[in-house]
Amino acid sequence: MNMKLSTDVSRTKITKLVLPPDTNHLGTIFGGKVLAYIDEIAAIAAMKHSKQVVVTASIDTVSFHSSAKVGDILTLEATVISTGKTSMEVYVKVECEHLETGEKSLTTTSLLTMVAINDEGIPVPVPEVIPKTEEEQQLSEQAKKRREERKKDHMA
Amino acid sequence: MNMKLSTDVSRTKITKLVLPPDTNHLGTIFGGKVLAYIDEIAAIAAMKHSKQVVVTASIDTVSFHSSAKVGDILTLEATVISTGKTSMEVYVKVECEHLETGEKSLTTTSLLTMVAINDEGIPVPVPEVIPKTEEEQQLSEQAKKRREERKKDHMA
Amino acid sequence: MNMKLSTDVSRTKITKLVLPPDTNHLGTIFGGKVLAYIDEIAAIAAMKHSKQVVVTASIDTVSFHSSAKVGDILTLEATVISTGKTSMEVYVKVECEHLETGEKSLTTTSLLTMVAINDEGIPVPVPEVIPKTEEEQQLSEQAKKRREERKKDHMA
Amino acid sequence: MNMKLSTDVSRTKITKLVLPPDTNHLGTIFGGKVLAYIDEIAAIAAMKHSKQVVVTASIDTVSFHSSAKVGDILTLEATVISTGKTSMEVYVKVECEHLETGEKSLTTTSLLTMVAINDEGIPVPVPEVIPKTEEEQQLSEQAKKRREERKKDHMA
Amino acid sequence: MNMKLSTDVSRTKITKLVLPPDTNHLGTIFGGKVLAYIDEIAAIAAMKHSKQVVVTASIDTVSFHSSAKVGDILTLEATVISTGKTSMEVYVKVECEHLETGEKSLTTTSLLTMVAINDEGIPVPVPEVIPKTEEEQQLSEQAKKRREERKKDHMA
Amino acid sequence: MNMKLSTDVSRTKITKLVLPPDTNHLGTIFGGKVLAYIDEIAAIAAMKHSKQVVVTASIDTVSFHSSAKVGDILTLEATVISTGKTSMEVYVKVECEHLETGEKSLTTTSLLTMVAINDEGIPVPVPEVIPKTEEEQQLSEQAKKRREERKKDHMA
Ligand SMILES: CC(C)(COP(=O)(O)OP(=O)(O)OC[C@H]1O[C@@H](n2cnc3c(N)ncnc32)[C@H](O)[C@@H]1OP(=O)(O)O)[C@@H](O)C(=O)NCCC(=O)NCCS
Ligand SMILES: CC(C)(COP(=O)(O)OP(=O)(O)OC[C@H]1O[C@@H](n2cnc3c(N)ncnc32)[C@H](O)[C@@H]1OP(=O)(O)O)[C@@H](O)C(=O)NCCC(=O)NCCS
Ligand SMILES: CC(C)(COP(=O)(O)OP(=O)(O)OC[C@H]1O[C@@H](n2cnc3c(N)ncnc32)[C@H](O)[C@@H]1OP(=O)(O)O)[C@@H](O)C(=O)NCCC(=O)NCCS
Ligand SMILES: CC(C)(COP(=O)(O)OP(=O)(O)OC[C@H]1O[C@@H](n2cnc3c(N)ncnc32)[C@H](O)[C@@H]1OP(=O)(O)O)[C@@H](O)C(=O)NCCC(=O)NCCS
Repeated sequence: MNMKLSTDVSRTKITKLVLPPDTNHLGTIFGGKVLAYIDEIAAIAAMKHSKQVVVTASIDTVSFHSSAKVGDILTLEATVISTGKTSMEVYVKVECEHLETGEKSLTTTSLLTMVAINDEGIPVPVPEVIPKTEEEQQLSEQAKKRREERKKDHMA
Repeated sequence: MNMKLSTDVSRTKITKLVLPPDTNHLGTIFGGKVLAYIDEIAAIAAMKHSKQVVVTASIDTVSFHSSAKVGDILTLEATVISTGKTSMEVYVKVECEHLETGEKSLTTTSLLTMVAINDEGIPVPVPEVIPKTEEEQQLSEQAKKRREERKKDHMA
Repeated sequence: MNMKLSTDVSRTKITKLVLPPDTNHLGTIFGGKVLAYIDEIAAIAAMKHSKQVVVTASIDTVSFHSSAKVGDILTLEATVISTGKTSMEVYVKVECEHLETGEKSLTTTSLLTMVAINDEGIPVPVPEVIPKTEEEQQLSEQAKKRREERKKDHMA
Repeated sequence: MNMKLSTDVSRTKITKLVLPPDTNHLGTIFGGKVLAYIDEIAAIAAMKHSKQVVVTASIDTVSFHSSAKVGDILTLEATVISTGKTSMEVYVKVECEHLETGEKSLTTTSLLTMVAINDEGIPVPVPEVIPKTEEEQQLSEQAKKRREERKKDHMA
Repeated sequence: MNMKLSTDVSRTKITKLVLPPDTNHLGTIFGGKVLAYIDEIAAIAAMKHSKQVVVTASIDTVSFHSSAKVGDILTLEATVISTGKTSMEVYVKVECEHLETGEKSLTTTSLLTMVAINDEGIPVPVPEVIPKTEEEQQLSEQAKKRREERKKDHMA
Repeated sequence: MNMKLSTDVSRTKITKLVLPPDTNHLGTIFGGKVLAYIDEIAAIAAMKHSKQVVVTASIDTVSFHSSAKVGDILTLEATVISTGKTSMEVYVKVECEHLETGEKSLTTTSLLTMVAINDEGIPVPVPEVIPKTEEEQQLSEQAKKRREERKKDHMA
């Protein structure tokens, strides 16, 4: 596949209100809920880039720097920042806004590998991505290194 | 309340993947699901504008111009485009993107009135909004007319 | 289609208990939740009338006169009160009962247009409806006017 | 408590559309889903009768005579048909309507014991019930016998 | 079918955290929620035993001895303890652990009949089960008696 | 806190049936669903060990080796295998069983850090853990190394 696509094609935004069923007795959101949102938006970004159904091959280490509470607003942004033959690395940034103070804090960032598949579940080629902003170019570089390390690990 | 806020403060985006449980046997999304998404994003936009908890006072006529199917991607965008003393009119635009063709179609647009409330459920004043783009100014004008008509209806 | 059906065929009732996940931090039900219930019951009423799968074409202005809280009981009643060739207007009435006082209040009323479709999503004819009570006859008249106004709007 | 209430006070109806997430791979509804609906409507009926929060003390043997499929319509009706000091026996009848044929079949009937409790979870007295129809009178008799047998079992 | 399987094949465990949406205003879990869990685990146990899709034919009387609250941990264990030609009796035990005290109490036990079906919904033969522990042998005996009583009831 | 607890205290098992709403159009489970299950069981294991409410501090890299489909059975097992002052490392193993063939495959393994908190969200001490099996001792060693590396990263 020869086509190259800008990061604008995949860029996706989701805003979520933290509700009681997403939280424990102290009103703190479950990590699993945030992980599910991260996977959902990464899948949408990768589907917009590849125009294919995608599956999650891996999600890298996620640290939760600050917690979100009932009534807080979560903002997620996802972009495909690097591509292999059939795989796409998606960068996801999660921020939490405390309604009354308007204060924003970074909840977490994450990198996921999504693989485009056809109806038989076989990986299929995806268009290349052209990182646009400087931040995206840096992320793209890091993603490449990460991929190479994983390949080395596989061979070890 | 003297403060005036730009429409940038409330502007909110959500992207959703249409999944089997959201649809009937033919794979067509339920209108009620879309209405629930519209209400959710309108509430978030109004909360971002007012920094208060809000309730839905009314939702105007909603026509579904085109249907969304399993695997389609829905994009919703909401902005507070007009304000009263304690109420905010929120404009919501819903688009549907068919993954394989990349074709986008307008699913529906909607205007909702959200009211800011305090912990006792009593309406509280909200900042004024300053529409930014030309489209927002037009919508703001229409919203005002709609509000006046509603007042007339009430008195009739 | 020559058959005419009484409003008894489609009349549908649902009773719901308002639970924490349906509500915001103040325990007030989300408008979107009520709209989803309204759409669900309207679809069932229209399916009972037409014996077909249906989709929501439009929902008219909905005003929430009173709010429902956690522990309240919502009662919804829906009836097909007017029919076109493939479309049905469904009248939905939502009442809220406060458990301890036994006090009932009208939450909202709504008119929706549902369209019967076949497996390809093509609209198919529906039986005519015969309004039974006086209230239904009035609603049926109003629904017809509304439909004509909508047609005029389309042509304008 | 001296008050006596007619079965009309508690009589409750719910109509449900069977959707894909309620079913297994063959499109047959899970028994657990039907049991959850039965418990929900029994609780609402008992709450309407007692004006109190209630908990389920027991549910008697439930046999599923026929299955419900995606697209079928389930109708549930519940009535308090017998009362003890703090407990209420609720009779629930579940019918399934196959949309296209209009054919109805009895899915199951069930008797549940709900107990009214106060904020500390302590059982509190409930009004007596007066069965209205002949069917209700019979059910009320049977419920009494069942209760006596249970008491004997407890003592055995 | 000649094969005989140990109870180890079907033995299934589920642990659940009681969350706000599973409970009423007093934070007590709904009986219907517990019944749904019981049906789910019984279905999985029966599917593991029969390697077939199963439906719930019946669930015997369930008494809730003690309640579970938000933050409590529910443990369910299910085993096929007796088999007919196409039916399996599954024994389910539900315990509740109060986190802070570590105190465990029996919430309920239940016996369900699951029937293995093929793609047309027709009952299909299942392997026999060999009860292993003494408790399982007793339960198996009781299940057999229960089944015979049901058959007598059917003929009466 | 002086107490030391065996890994038996926290060991937790969950079995899940993969259902249509957990999957994409091809019937393959969403990675986010599996991640949510992993977080849920890890939280329960950590709560059983610490008798406290816990939050997820981090989840390490997760690779999905094989996919799970509608009708498959997922088995998750979680154990606290290493403890700090207020943090616990939980090892989670996810296996998928294909019903008809009975074939089992490893979906993924994961290590999560859960932190015990009090009602103000402040980290509180947890009992030490004593790994039991040889596998647990190995995992415990690896977990310690991982923790030291993270600390070095933090300081870098
Ligand atoms: C991801 C998956 C499709 C890869 O299949 P495969 O047979 O290994 O195919 P390949 O070896 O050709 O790899 C395809 C691509 O996936 C990448 N990949 C495979 N495993 C990976 C992993 N664990 N992490 C990151 N990338 C991975 C490969 O590097 C390759 O990328 P490239 O085409 O850009 O060079 C397969 O492992 C799978 O189906 N996993 C389960 C996915 C899933 O269902 N997730 C949801 C929760 S279980
Ligand atoms: C039901 C419950 C409140 C009864 O409490 P208790 O301390 O036994 O109280 P009592 O002995 O005063 O009984 C109260 C009433 O419940 C009835 N009852 C108690 N156990 C019952 C059972 N298993 N089946 C039917 N009725 C029962 C008693 O007959 C009595 O009825 P009456 O007042 O009409 O004569 C208590 O067992 C409980 O909380 N169970 C858990 C309920 C629950 O949470 N269910 C949801 C799923 S776990
Ligand atoms: C269960 C069901 C498949 C039985 O079908 P059937 O035509 O009666 O088949 P059979 O008479 O051959 O009975 C098959 C087995 O089910 C058992 N069975 C039937 N009804 C039963 C009941 N109410 N309780 C317990 N077992 C029952 C029979 O004893 C027989 O067992 P065996 O083969 O081990 O001797 C059928 O009644 C059904 O589909 N019910 C609805 C199940 C369902 O969808 N439940 C979910 C909620 S509605
Ligand atoms: C986890 C959290 C409570 C730590 O709070 P803190 O103020 O950093 O507290 P401390 O520095 O005293 O650290 C407490 C423990 O957490 C560990 N920890 C902190 N951040 C960590 C991370 N990213 N990964 C792993 N462990 C971490 C520390 O090593 C320490 O462990 P120890 O007591 O065993 O030595 C805090 O970062 C937090 O609330 N995060 C959000 C958690 C959350 O809500 N997750 C759900 C989704 S957002």
